[in-house]
Amino acid sequence: MDKKAKVNASILIIGNEILSGRTQDTNTSTLAIWLNSIGVNVAEVRVIPDIEKIIVENVNLMRSIHDYVFTTGGIGPTHDDITAQSISKAFGIKYEVHKEAFKILEKYYEPGKFNEGRQKMAWMPENANLILNPTSGAPGFSVDNVFSLPGVPSILKSMLGGITNNIVGGIPIKSLTISLRTVESEIASSLTSVQNDNQDVEIGSYPFFHAGKLGVSIVIRSEDQKKIDNCNSQILKFVNEKKIDVVDR
Amino acid sequence: MDKKAKVNASILIIGNEILSGRTQDTNTSTLAIWLNSIGVNVAEVRVIPDIEKIIVENVNLMRSIHDYVFTTGGIGPTHDDITAQSISKAFGIKYEVHKEAFKILEKYYEPGKFNEGRQKMAWMPENANLILNPTSGAPGFSVDNVFSLPGVPSILKSMLGGITNNIVGGIPIKSLTISLRTVESEIASSLTSVQNDNQDVEIGSYPFFHAGKLGVSIVIRSEDQKKIDNCNSQILKFVNEKKIDVVDR
Repeated sequence: MDKKAKVNASILIIGNEILSGRTQDTNTSTLAIWLNSIGVNVAEVRVIPDIEKIIVENVNLMRSIHDYVFTTGGIGPTHDDITAQSISKAFGIKYEVHKEAFKILEKYYEPGKFNEGRQKMAWMPENANLILNPTSGAPGFSVDNVFSLPGVPSILKSMLGGITNNIVGGIPIKSLTISLRTVESEIASSLTSVQNDNQDVEIGSYPFFHAGKLGVSIVIRSEDQKKIDNCNSQILKFVNEKKIDVVDR
Repeated sequence: MDKKAKVNASILIIGNEILSGRTQDTNTSTLAIWLNSIGVNVAEVRVIPDIEKIIVENVNLMRSIHDYVFTTGGIGPTHDDITAQSISKAFGIKYEVHKEAFKILEKYYEPGKFNEGRQKMAWMPENANLILNPTSGAPGFSVDNVFSLPGVPSILKSMLGGITNNIVGGIPIKSLTISLRTVESEIASSLTSVQNDNQDVEIGSYPFFHAGKLGVSIVIRSEDQKKIDNCNSQILKFVNEKKIDVVDR
């Protein structure tokens, strides 16, 4: 093997509001696109409730089997925000006021406005590394390979740039999409042959409805551009033979 | 305990396209809202890749710890659709042509158009119960407490009505939302007191940005309307005292 080992991450979405269906999670997609761009593969995502025991168990399992773990949600000021205390427990370390976070928050709020609820956001696992928050002051944090981010999508997005340098990715996964004016069952057997000929390339097939018309997007993913190009040629060959139109998508 | 035990479900989102961030999952929210309405709590959601071993392990774990398991994705005609064969393996039963599904599909397509790819969609675990598909023909299926649905959101939605009667829920979970023109840290300590006084009620606090303004939605969830009303009164009391506006949201 002349390439770097695959780097895997998992995402723990912590929040009853996702499990109840009230809120649509969008952080998975944001994190996955960012992680792929820096050579990290997302191996699994779990959505779990705001229950300390469950958070502790999942954090401890995930951090032992994946290179990185990202949690979203549960780091705000209210009683249902229990991520920081749960992660302290998972690592068996103290849950305490983080001096630097305290200073950042104290400075962020007007004099006299840094109340008890806001001070709770400075409570973190002992010696956590801060993840700065350019949007709304309250930092996230990381302990070892576990990175804890907020649940609000716009705030989470604004914090990723600050930790890109802390993540050591593998070879970035490249991807090519071919969109066709057809239905999956018309190309299934030809596509299976291409997959069988290229077992170490990930080929996915995804039907779509766009502008009132049916289509299929074929997504080819690999660390190796040559392998992608080779699959692409093989696919375009049968697409041509079947007189299927390639479309923009 | 004079009420029915809680009925729990888990959701397995099967699909590399969600893990890569290419596709935004929306089926979790659709399934969760529907399940809540029939008295089923979603305990956990996992997004897992199109890898047979991982699907088998997760199906077998989830079906043993939850009352129901719902899978989405991987039941189409292409090589990456491996849910049916994986579920057969999980249950240790044959993966074979389902006669009724075959007939439905044969009838759905024009004569001569029921090709090999399409016939693959009739392959299911032995003696699976069909889940009819009013949108695009190809049925889903269930085996024991595991229900397998397609990944395309509009098709999945159209199939839920057909299985509502197959799910035995507990007492439906009721929910009340109070939206406030405030920020979380202004109400955190008062809300903590209400939660401490009502430990068997689930109280969540969710910041929002709407029409350029910040706000917080408090969501109260319980099977017992009286308990919800009681929390509501306690919350409105401190909201009133703090002169915080209640807003529509």
